[in-house]
Amino acid sequence: MNQIQRVTIVGGIHGNELLGIYLVKKFRKFPQILQRYTDIEIKTLLANPKAIASNKRYIDIDLNRCFDLKDLSDRSLVLYEQLLAKAIYQQFKSERSNDMALPPSEFIIDIHTTTANMGITLLLSNELPFNLNLVAYLVALNPKIKLVCAHSKREKNRLRSISPYGFTLEVGSIPHGVLDPIWFAKTEALIFSILDYITKFNRQQKENISDSLTLYSVFKAVSFPLDEIGEINAMVHPQLHGKDYCALHPRQPIFLKFDGSTILYKGNETVYPIFINESAYGEKNIAMYFTSRKQVFIPLDKKM
Amino acid sequence: MNQIQRVTIVGGIHGNELLGIYLVKKFRKFPQILQRYTDIEIKTLLANPKAIASNKRYIDIDLNRCFDLKDLSDRSLVLYEQLLAKAIYQQFKSERSNDMALPPSEFIIDIHTTTANMGITLLLSNELPFNLNLVAYLVALNPKIKLVCAHSKREKNRLRSISPYGFTLEVGSIPHGVLDPIWFAKTEALIFSILDYITKFNRQQKENISDSLTLYSVFKAVSFPLDEIGEINAMVHPQLHGKDYCALHPRQPIFLKFDGSTILYKGNETVYPIFINESAYGEKNIAMYFTSRKQVFIPLDKKM
Repeated sequence: MNQIQRVTIVGGIHGNELLGIYLVKKFRKFPQILQRYTDIEIKTLLANPKAIASNKRYIDIDLNRCFDLKDLSDRSLVLYEQLLAKAIYQQFKSERSNDMALPPSEFIIDIHTTTANMGITLLLSNELPFNLNLVAYLVALNPKIKLVCAHSKREKNRLRSISPYGFTLEVGSIPHGVLDPIWFAKTEALIFSILDYITKFNRQQKENISDSLTLYSVFKAVSFPLDEIGEINAMVHPQLHGKDYCALHPRQPIFLKFDGSTILYKGNETVYPIFINESAYGEKNIAMYFTSRKQVFIPLDKKM
Repeated sequence: MNQIQRVTIVGGIHGNELLGIYLVKKFRKFPQILQRYTDIEIKTLLANPKAIASNKRYIDIDLNRCFDLKDLSDRSLVLYEQLLAKAIYQQFKSERSNDMALPPSEFIIDIHTTTANMGITLLLSNELPFNLNLVAYLVALNPKIKLVCAHSKREKNRLRSISPYGFTLEVGSIPHGVLDPIWFAKTEALIFSILDYITKFNRQQKENISDSLTLYSVFKAVSFPLDEIGEINAMVHPQLHGKDYCALHPRQPIFLKFDGSTILYKGNETVYPIFINESAYGEKNIAMYFTSRKQVFIPLDKKM
C-alpha cells in the first residue's frame, strides 16, 4: 500500500446508535467540514436505513453479523439485513473494480455506541502495521483511548472485516436512542485526527509515536447466571458495573444474586472485563466480555 | 383516610426499563424481604408482560398513556396496551369491591427509569397532605431526591392517576435495557423507606420533617429544532446535556446546531429543564421539558 485514497465513514449499522448516524448526516449536509482533506475521497454510509427509521438496532437480525464472505455468497440468506449486507458489499466491490487505478482497498471507520462505560474504544480487525501506527498516533493524542483486538474467526462477520484498514469505533456510555452532544464532539474530533493521520501518511510526513501499545484481546463472553426456569438471578456486581478495562482479580465480586449473595470471579488469571452491561447483549444473555491485556510492538510502517 | 392498608409496587409499565421489572421479580421470589411490613398488604404488578418479553417500551402504544377514565370506558379502543390498561384497572377496582372493609384506595409506586440525568425523581399525581408528608420524609432521608408535580389534565392518563396516593419513580441516567446494580440498590432502599413511612403513619408515629418542599412543575415540552425536510438540525447543547434540574437562564445555550451555531434560550424567565435527552421522547421529537420551581408548604396530615 502506498496511499489511502478512499475512506468510508459508516453510521447506523445499528439503527438506534445515534452518534454515527448524525455524524454522517452532518458530514453530508456540511461537506465543507471535510474539504481540507483534499488527498482523500471521503464517502459516507448510513448502513441500515430501515432500522434507523425505526430507531431499532435491527429489523430481522444484527447487520454487523452478516458480512462473513461465506454468508455474502449464500443465496439462501434473504433476511432484511442479510440482503442489505450483500448490497453494501457489492457497492464496496464495484467501487474497486470501477476504477482500477485505485488500490483494491478501503479504509472503513464504523461508528458505534455502547451503554457500557468504554470511553472511546477502537476495535481492530487486524494488527497490520498501518493500523497499529495509526492507533498509536491517536493514543498519543488522547491516552484515554482503548484498543481492543477483535479479529477472531467469529469476528469475520463484521463490516470492518471487509477492509484491511480501519476499525470499529465504540463510544460510551451512551444510551441507545440518545444523541449525546459531548461524545459527539469527541468522536468528530477523533475522525479529524484519523483523517489528519491518513493525510500525513499519504504525504510521507513521519510522526513521532511510541514504540509499543496496550491491546486488550477478547477471549470470552460471560453470561448472566440463570435460575432453574432460565431467568437471570443475578446482576453485575455493583463494584464491577462501569469498571470496563479495570483489572478483575481472582476471587473479586463479579455478580450480585437477587438473594443477596455474591458470586466471585473463579478464574486464576487477572482479566479486564469490557462491554459490561451492554444493553444490546442482553438478548444473548451476555453480561460482559473478558479480555487479556498485552503490550504489542509497533512495527515500522513501510511508508513511515 | 385512616390507614394505608394496600400498596402496589409496579414494574414494567415500559418493558425495557429493567430496574422496576427486576425489583418486582426479586420481591416475588424472596417475599421475606418485605415480611417486616406486617401492617400492609403489598402487591406487585409486572404491568406489560408482552413488552417485557420483547424488551421494548411498548407493543402498540405507550401503556402509561392509556389510563384516562374516558379511554378506559371507550370500547372502541382495542390496541394491546389499551386492553391491558382496562384489565389492570378492572383488577384494581375489583380488589376494592371484593373487600368493603378496606378503604377504596390504593397506594401505587410505579417504578420507571430514564436516560436523563434525573437521579431519583418522584412524579406526584397530586399534592394531597399524605403524599407531601411522605415525600418530605423521603427528602429528609435523602436530600438529593427531586419532586416533580405532574398532575395536569394531560397527566390523567398515567397509571399513577388511578390512585390518590403514591407516585411514579423515575431513576436515571440508566440506558433502557440495562439493569444498573447501583441504582437498583438505591431504589430498593427508597421503597423500604416508603413502606417504613406508611407503617409509621398507620401506627400514628409522628415524624419530624421540614415544613416546606421544593417542587418542580412541568409546564412545557421543548422540541428539537427541525430543518426544512423535518429532520432535527441541532443537538441539546453540550453545556445543557446532563444538567437536569439546573437553572437555565435567559440567553444561555440550549441547542447546538449541526452547522456549528448555538441556539440560545429565548424565554424571559429562568427555567429548570428535566428529561433532557430522554431517549423514549425522541419519537415525539421532545428534547426536554421545562419546569418552574416553587416552594410548597406542607400541610399537617390529619393523622400526623
